[in-house]
Amino acid sequence: MPKFFKKASKQAGLPPGTLVHIGERKAEHTRISIIDYNETEFKETEVKNIEECFPFKETPTTTWINIDGLHDISLIEKIGKCYGLHPLILEDIVNTSQRPKYEDFQNYLYIVVKMLSYDEKEKEIKVEQVSIILGPNYVISFQEIEGDIFDPIRQRIRNAKGRIRSEGADYLAYSLLDTIVDNYFIVLEQVGERIERIEEEVLGNPTPHTLSAINNLKSDAIFLRKAVWPLRDVISGLERSESPLIRKGTRLFLRDVYDHAIQVIDSVETFRDMISGKLDIYLSSMSNKMNEVMKVLTIIATIFIPITFVAGIYGMNFDPDVSRFNMPELSWKYGYIGAWIVMIVMALIMVYYFKRKKWI
Amino acid sequence: MPKFFKKASKQAGLPPGTLVHIGERKAEHTRISIIDYNETEFKETEVKNIEECFPFKETPTTTWINIDGLHDISLIEKIGKCYGLHPLILEDIVNTSQRPKYEDFQNYLYIVVKMLSYDEKEKEIKVEQVSIILGPNYVISFQEIEGDIFDPIRQRIRNAKGRIRSEGADYLAYSLLDTIVDNYFIVLEQVGERIERIEEEVLGNPTPHTLSAINNLKSDAIFLRKAVWPLRDVISGLERSESPLIRKGTRLFLRDVYDHAIQVIDSVETFRDMISGKLDIYLSSMSNKMNEVMKVLTIIATIFIPITFVAGIYGMNFDPDVSRFNMPELSWKYGYIGAWIVMIVMALIMVYYFKRKKWI
Amino acid sequence: MPKFFKKASKQAGLPPGTLVHIGERKAEHTRISIIDYNETEFKETEVKNIEECFPFKETPTTTWINIDGLHDISLIEKIGKCYGLHPLILEDIVNTSQRPKYEDFQNYLYIVVKMLSYDEKEKEIKVEQVSIILGPNYVISFQEIEGDIFDPIRQRIRNAKGRIRSEGADYLAYSLLDTIVDNYFIVLEQVGERIERIEEEVLGNPTPHTLSAINNLKSDAIFLRKAVWPLRDVISGLERSESPLIRKGTRLFLRDVYDHAIQVIDSVETFRDMISGKLDIYLSSMSNKMNEVMKVLTIIATIFIPITFVAGIYGMNFDPDVSRFNMPELSWKYGYIGAWIVMIVMALIMVYYFKRKKWI
Amino acid sequence: MPKFFKKASKQAGLPPGTLVHIGERKAEHTRISIIDYNETEFKETEVKNIEECFPFKETPTTTWINIDGLHDISLIEKIGKCYGLHPLILEDIVNTSQRPKYEDFQNYLYIVVKMLSYDEKEKEIKVEQVSIILGPNYVISFQEIEGDIFDPIRQRIRNAKGRIRSEGADYLAYSLLDTIVDNYFIVLEQVGERIERIEEEVLGNPTPHTLSAINNLKSDAIFLRKAVWPLRDVISGLERSESPLIRKGTRLFLRDVYDHAIQVIDSVETFRDMISGKLDIYLSSMSNKMNEVMKVLTIIATIFIPITFVAGIYGMNFDPDVSRFNMPELSWKYGYIGAWIVMIVMALIMVYYFKRKKWI
Amino acid sequence: MPKFFKKASKQAGLPPGTLVHIGERKAEHTRISIIDYNETEFKETEVKNIEECFPFKETPTTTWINIDGLHDISLIEKIGKCYGLHPLILEDIVNTSQRPKYEDFQNYLYIVVKMLSYDEKEKEIKVEQVSIILGPNYVISFQEIEGDIFDPIRQRIRNAKGRIRSEGADYLAYSLLDTIVDNYFIVLEQVGERIERIEEEVLGNPTPHTLSAINNLKSDAIFLRKAVWPLRDVISGLERSESPLIRKGTRLFLRDVYDHAIQVIDSVETFRDMISGKLDIYLSSMSNKMNEVMKVLTIIATIFIPITFVAGIYGMNFDPDVSRFNMPELSWKYGYIGAWIVMIVMALIMVYYFKRKKWI
Repeated sequence: MPKFFKKASKQAGLPPGTLVHIGERKAEHTRISIIDYNETEFKETEVKNIEECFPFKETPTTTWINIDGLHDISLIEKIGKCYGLHPLILEDIVNTSQRPKYEDFQNYLYIVVKMLSYDEKEKEIKVEQVSIILGPNYVISFQEIEGDIFDPIRQRIRNAKGRIRSEGADYLAYSLLDTIVDNYFIVLEQVGERIERIEEEVLGNPTPHTLSAINNLKSDAIFLRKAVWPLRDVISGLERSESPLIRKGTRLFLRDVYDHAIQVIDSVETFRDMISGKLDIYLSSMSNKMNEVMKVLTIIATIFIPITFVAGIYGMNFDPDVSRFNMPELSWKYGYIGAWIVMIVMALIMVYYFKRKKWI
Repeated sequence: MPKFFKKASKQAGLPPGTLVHIGERKAEHTRISIIDYNETEFKETEVKNIEECFPFKETPTTTWINIDGLHDISLIEKIGKCYGLHPLILEDIVNTSQRPKYEDFQNYLYIVVKMLSYDEKEKEIKVEQVSIILGPNYVISFQEIEGDIFDPIRQRIRNAKGRIRSEGADYLAYSLLDTIVDNYFIVLEQVGERIERIEEEVLGNPTPHTLSAINNLKSDAIFLRKAVWPLRDVISGLERSESPLIRKGTRLFLRDVYDHAIQVIDSVETFRDMISGKLDIYLSSMSNKMNEVMKVLTIIATIFIPITFVAGIYGMNFDPDVSRFNMPELSWKYGYIGAWIVMIVMALIMVYYFKRKKWI
Repeated sequence: MPKFFKKASKQAGLPPGTLVHIGERKAEHTRISIIDYNETEFKETEVKNIEECFPFKETPTTTWINIDGLHDISLIEKIGKCYGLHPLILEDIVNTSQRPKYEDFQNYLYIVVKMLSYDEKEKEIKVEQVSIILGPNYVISFQEIEGDIFDPIRQRIRNAKGRIRSEGADYLAYSLLDTIVDNYFIVLEQVGERIERIEEEVLGNPTPHTLSAINNLKSDAIFLRKAVWPLRDVISGLERSESPLIRKGTRLFLRDVYDHAIQVIDSVETFRDMISGKLDIYLSSMSNKMNEVMKVLTIIATIFIPITFVAGIYGMNFDPDVSRFNMPELSWKYGYIGAWIVMIVMALIMVYYFKRKKWI
Repeated sequence: MPKFFKKASKQAGLPPGTLVHIGERKAEHTRISIIDYNETEFKETEVKNIEECFPFKETPTTTWINIDGLHDISLIEKIGKCYGLHPLILEDIVNTSQRPKYEDFQNYLYIVVKMLSYDEKEKEIKVEQVSIILGPNYVISFQEIEGDIFDPIRQRIRNAKGRIRSEGADYLAYSLLDTIVDNYFIVLEQVGERIERIEEEVLGNPTPHTLSAINNLKSDAIFLRKAVWPLRDVISGLERSESPLIRKGTRLFLRDVYDHAIQVIDSVETFRDMISGKLDIYLSSMSNKMNEVMKVLTIIATIFIPITFVAGIYGMNFDPDVSRFNMPELSWKYGYIGAWIVMIVMALIMVYYFKRKKWI
Repeated sequence: MPKFFKKASKQAGLPPGTLVHIGERKAEHTRISIIDYNETEFKETEVKNIEECFPFKETPTTTWINIDGLHDISLIEKIGKCYGLHPLILEDIVNTSQRPKYEDFQNYLYIVVKMLSYDEKEKEIKVEQVSIILGPNYVISFQEIEGDIFDPIRQRIRNAKGRIRSEGADYLAYSLLDTIVDNYFIVLEQVGERIERIEEEVLGNPTPHTLSAINNLKSDAIFLRKAVWPLRDVISGLERSESPLIRKGTRLFLRDVYDHAIQVIDSVETFRDMISGKLDIYLSSMSNKMNEVMKVLTIIATIFIPITFVAGIYGMNFDPDVSRFNMPELSWKYGYIGAWIVMIVMALIMVYYFKRKKWI
């Protein structure tokens, strides 16, 4: 289960606009890469100092600055000053407990979403906060760790594949969002397979471990829901925003991402619905098992307790010599065989009773 | 249970508008059939090459191109180019994990819905994605497999029965939707019968198999809901759309399909409500059964354990020769009969107790 | 439980506007009765042929045509043609699986609602579909079976009691709706009484039969809800409609029916709330009962198993002649009495333990 | 539990506007009291005949007519005629199963709300319907029984305390509403205390009686909700109404009552939330208790059954004289002591096992 | 668990605007502190008499009057008179059962919110009502007890740190709200940790104490929800209010608090979701434990009861001298060994059966 509750409390008491990095420090170093392109030109560099990015601000070409690692507060502050970003935005970028949202600051748009991935090794969903600043001719993206999910976009820019080189910064921002949302489907499939596995387990052979697996699925579903629901408003907000930074042609593509986001939300809701009933079925399965255990106990006990009583009777030591009423059966010729017959008949009656009750 | 989670992840990383067929390949070959008609003329052909359809685009008659099988990407691309369809639409047509939706592209409307059918043999609900393109004088419909549910419409066109021949492409599109929605009722009836069967089973004689049947019904209800809810928006969107492609007369008919869709949604919600309680009743039924098992055990054990103890007492070997306090009962005249009387009285007290408790 | 799922699938594949009677055929014959009145005149007839109704169309008096029995398709078609009703309306009239709704067709309004009654004999809620056509000077009502719930209205017209004779067709239609809604209260009271009965049963002496009674109540509540919720929109639609067929004075009365409908919906929701918890209480009650059974078993077994062991000990046949260690107790003077004392003390300890645990 | 379902069905079949008293007849006699006041004058009388009220209609002073007891239909009709009240209003006044609502009839406003009180003796919530007619210079209030909750208002008028004497009829109506809503808090506190008591009981020592107490609380919460929710719309309707009968200054006070109503609704929702989980905790508590019972049974049975078997073995009568294989243990020197050792070791192993399982 | 239900009923029957302190008296004395500042000047005093505050009303500098302790009614009344506050506002300030709300009174805004803190010692969430009056150049804040959460703001004012000294009263009010909301995160983290602890407990080793811990968490979640939900409307109301008391620059900051409030609400909802399932898992865990107990009992009983019966058989005293049919086994050579073999085989069959059932 991903951590739900980050140390967001660190910030309590500080004046607004104070930059505090909230969240795990996932990356060792901060890495800054720049891609600068238009339809004909293309330039890709990795820089050490954030100051090297600043000249790109003035160029008419589209510039994509990607920053991996959010713990270097002073770097974030410098880029904020250069691009004129509001202090509250910078505060949000480094606070990784943000809720996905979108805000319009006239000169630029600020988008923050959650990027999800399924960690096969630790069998858990990983989450990373991605902030995107969309300006007139630049896109700045902030990630917590270096990742390769944006690599296909870089490839497309390098190879001038698709329409990406001929479109502007808004199309680039759309491409980043599209990639993030498409990635959700991979996580959803993993969860879907886990649900199907649990389904079989719960009906077939539920164990205490199944209980904890259901619990994990439930937490994951709650977690996914929290990450995914606000997406709807973020993307429809972008699509319907009146900001001149988003051209009409790009809106059509945003509508497509919106459809995908709705599909993701739909799937998460379906997951919730499917998981919600599983615990009841687990309980019912357990109840069935207990029933079976009880039946075995009841059948054995109910057959043997009465006939053991019969055996007990003839184990009594009443003295037949004293009186002819004292256990005359013991000296009958067929006394022993009679006792067996009585016991077998009693057992058969019980068996018949259980058969009629359909217990055996 | 129908598969919930298709490999929608295949597409992650590809540029938007890339056509990837997502879903099972259900049809061997792609089949293209064309019906071209107006009030007086009628022509029906099956073509091998999609190019044979193109001339129909220019005719003033209403043309219905029906394509079965979505795996042939190049064919979809060709038809898209000929009819000027947006790449994102083509992407949606071949991705069978779409959510039902409706989009207005000025020159044509794009409608995607789910067609449901109940597979009697495999006892499960089958789902198929149907895309409909409605242009000024043509309708293009895409199905995953060849089906015969549109056959009655073909018959009506052939026989010029009803008003279909005298109406345009919008009425044809309505007819397709109407047929799909009407077909839902067949699936709903099947589910309704299964619910009634479960109802009897759960109250009468619940078995572990009942549990898995309830689970299946629940999954089916979730699945139906997912397929059916968006329909409401699709059809009301069409009805209220301001597109000139839909004439006023047809809107009245769309209102009728809308009413049917609401009825379908209503029924699915009723199903959910009815199924939701079944698991609790199953649990209660199980609890009743367990109670009965426990009662039998308790009655038998509680009657026989004390009297077996009495028999045990007189099976002890204390030596009456040593002292007159040692088991004098053994040499009483009516000792044995007295022991029986004690045991029978104890048993009767228990039986009386159970009668009063209404356990027997 | 009323049937939830009618053979609505019959219609799949037929062209729209095809009349198919869906639902049970409840009435033997179709019965047509006409009441024609204004403030001063009054005429009441029962006709054999629907054609006899047609002349009333032209009269300035208010005409109420009531048709019981919907299976005679040709009759419905004739009246539809005479009064210029849309084929889709006729289709809806004979399809008794309609959802309550209201539609405005300029010249007339179409209202379809459910009439409920409680069948004392079969202990179930009966439902009947009532369609009402409200024209400028006529009301046509369609019922599935002959019923007498409209009789008080007929009486009021005959006796010129109340304001009904001085008002027009809209007031008549309102009166029909008002009567139908008022009748809901009778059904609600029956359900209310059943709930109170169940409440006592579930807390007092729950039996497996209680379980099935709760299940029936739940189904009935779902059913009522389905019939009653759309009523709200139907009546508020009528009240707020801009149709000149409904005069301002009548709207005030419709507002009153609306209040009643809301009260009905409120009560149905209250029912649902009250029933929803009953199953949990049943389960808890069952759990209590099981607990009691278990306690009896445990008390008896826990008292007697240890002392039976003691008795068993002294039933062993170790040979005291071989060694003085072999069961010397058997030849002690107070051996037998000592054994009894041991056993009684063991039993008393157990009883004390159970008293402290408050099990006895 | 208050009665949910009144004989509202009495009215079915009657023409609209027919006055039928629905509800229990709670008051013996009808009592009419009049208070007539303005800033300087004050007059208070109790009248026998309703006709004595009529002269007050014309005076410029504010008149408050309070009627206790609704069963006297003719009295209600007379006052209705004098003050020009709509027959439907009169019908609503005497039908105590009304839902709280507010209606604007130009010349007067009609408000109907529920007054709640907690009957300490019968430990149940009592409900009473209060109707208020607000005219330009009069307020008529209808109660089911004589009550003293309006007494503080009368005192304030008599003593000219607060601003009540200097304000008009709208302020008086507000004062009545305010008093009714303030009274809700007393009922809420009682319910709150009952919830806290149940909370302790359910976790500490749940009994079957706890179950019925939870059930009662649940019914009460449903009941409160039904009475309280519509209040929100009633008061916000009044506050935002454009009726000239409510002056701007009074609206501010109505806003305050609205805040209180929201607080009441909030509390009722909190109650529901708190109660809803109690049954599950009861079940869990019961399950814990059963577990404990089972453990005691299992420990005792599992320790004694095997050792009783050992005792049984040496109670067998195989003849050692026939063969040296027949029960040689019986004639061993330490046979009896050995048997004890075996039994004690078996018992200790069991005890150790239970200790490890943490059952003891 | 914090007290849900304060004695709000105290006020019932009093005229509106009567000041009654509702809630615990938490502070011994009332403490009044004043901070008066603008960009250049700064003055901080603590006063004994409220009258000492009044001169600050006229100064152009920003004045922050903070009052700790609400039980001194006359003091509140005096300040109300001096600053022209509406009596209903004063009533709300001293009634600590207020729902968070915001009201615009032209000359000043009235904001009431809940301040939360986690009391480590008593392991419970403490709540305190904070009322804020925002005037053109003053802020009056009312707290129930002296607290130090506003201390960082005082420090910032003293040190002229951040922009607080250069901004007006609206920025000060924002700072107070921001501090309160930031403080929520500390409480949320505590609750989050408790949930994680319960999660482990419930799956690992649930005890009856776990049940009460889950119950407490649930109550806390309900309580948090009640305190936090209205916050959303309060802050968005402030942000969107058209009051000139809030300048445009401050709105941007309010938007930031709003985002935090949404995050808080989101987290509370996540808590609720996570807690809601815990009780079911507890029940399932308990059911698992019971199952295990039952299995042990069944295995031991089912193995030993039949073989004890065999031992019982050969403890019978049928007289072999009377007839050769009476217990001939007793005098067989290998009778005893045979009996052992029979018993061992019976036991092994049982063990095999349990192995196959996977019970051992």
